[in-house]
Amino acid sequence: MSFSQNDLSEFAAFADRLADAARAESLTRFRKGAMIFNKAGPWFDPVTDADREAERALRRMIESVYPKHAILGEEFGEKQGDSPWRWVLDPVDGTRAFMCGTTSWTTLIALEYEGAPVFGLIDQPFTEERWTGWAGKTRYARASETLEVKTSGLKDIAKARLSTTDPLPTGYFSDAEAAAFARVAKAARVARFSLDAYAYSLLAHGEIDIVIESALQRHDYAALLPVVEGAGGVVTNWQGDPPGTDEKGELIAAATPELHAAALALLAG
Amino acid sequence: MSFSQNDLSEFAAFADRLADAARAESLTRFRKGAMIFNKAGPWFDPVTDADREAERALRRMIESVYPKHAILGEEFGEKQGDSPWRWVLDPVDGTRAFMCGTTSWTTLIALEYEGAPVFGLIDQPFTEERWTGWAGKTRYARASETLEVKTSGLKDIAKARLSTTDPLPTGYFSDAEAAAFARVAKAARVARFSLDAYAYSLLAHGEIDIVIESALQRHDYAALLPVVEGAGGVVTNWQGDPPGTDEKGELIAAATPELHAAALALLAG
Repeated sequence: MSFSQNDLSEFAAFADRLADAARAESLTRFRKGAMIFNKAGPWFDPVTDADREAERALRRMIESVYPKHAILGEEFGEKQGDSPWRWVLDPVDGTRAFMCGTTSWTTLIALEYEGAPVFGLIDQPFTEERWTGWAGKTRYARASETLEVKTSGLKDIAKARLSTTDPLPTGYFSDAEAAAFARVAKAARVARFSLDAYAYSLLAHGEIDIVIESALQRHDYAALLPVVEGAGGVVTNWQGDPPGTDEKGELIAAATPELHAAALALLAG
Repeated sequence: MSFSQNDLSEFAAFADRLADAARAESLTRFRKGAMIFNKAGPWFDPVTDADREAERALRRMIESVYPKHAILGEEFGEKQGDSPWRWVLDPVDGTRAFMCGTTSWTTLIALEYEGAPVFGLIDQPFTEERWTGWAGKTRYARASETLEVKTSGLKDIAKARLSTTDPLPTGYFSDAEAAAFARVAKAARVARFSLDAYAYSLLAHGEIDIVIESALQRHDYAALLPVVEGAGGVVTNWQGDPPGTDEKGELIAAATPELHAAALALLAG
């Protein structure tokens, strides 16, 4: 059994509807900081709320339209299916961004065929930006603007714009991982932090050249692969193997194979 | 000699026109990453270009409408005036954000009266967000939405959302400053990095509670003071004195006097 371009085209249109539904749940709960802190009484957590309500809405839509498809979501775990297709959902990636009012949190939607991500979507509701990768291309949509995007094509690490969500060993990185990241940062031109999955869309867009992270789970990265690869980028774990083949959740994405190889060598020490 | 609310109201309307003009210069040069790196030939620098062209446009407008006013700009230095008023301009604050395609770079416009900032504007052209602080209030405008904003009102540092542009001693911070920041980060709930002046607008908006930075110059922070203070926040240097009274360019902004005092104590060690 296999699938056609037509199948993917149908699923991509459906994923757009999923992302629209997630926007409605997340955006209405965004930037309620004053509400969180000024109110007396029990803790009010708009992030968890947005995450749960959005995932509920997405699961209902998938179960209604594709009842045989499997679903893996961050909040409500796995639903077994009776087909080679599985949807992987992270309705609000970047919880800390969401709770600090910054606009790097995103909705991540992936579709896997026999375990391999063949469609990925990254959506930022506040800026109304959406990147979708499938069939070897990555498309960007914002309001009436749509375009196909490519990575920067950069090969020289000395010019590279690097990103990770938290460079400190007090965050996701172990001490050894933080030291490995610092070696790449020293070789690169500039580093930006705290971008979560938004960094991968900027890599696909040609604006960031390398993203290095750790401790990622399937729902954190499944959608990123088609988006980065469709734009000409490379994504592996820190050993150069497919993401998910180790238990550390280490990931490196780069604009070109040359840049990827240079960064991998620095990570190895 | 002094000034009236009517003067400020007129200057605020004029500053909106300045910010609109800066948008036109910066936004057209934003996210040209592929252009920077893919082209052969001489280095192409859209950031510097945006900065210079925007400042030229702003200076022309000020000189035409208020020829006696003094001007201090990041790119073209100081123009002496013949009045108590001085405009302080940073057309693209957050150069590294701009060159990495992230949306935390801003245009900063301040108006000082006898050396004290009495009007401040922070504008993010891509998200179309603008914060203005004057006459004891801070206003937020985005498309048709306008509202008066307040800080979170948070007093408990254990719940605080903290930000700095770069937490590493390889960035703006000295080793001692990075260690001082780490003490505050350990006490706070969550930290976000790489936000530049945008962090101060989020503080005024009630979404971030503390911002701590160093190595700031007058054009980096003059506009931030009226925006943060108009929303009920506190801004000083790390000794609790007015910003600019030391040579290090250290700044701390907090949602409340209580939170400010708690963070100052941790910075002191």
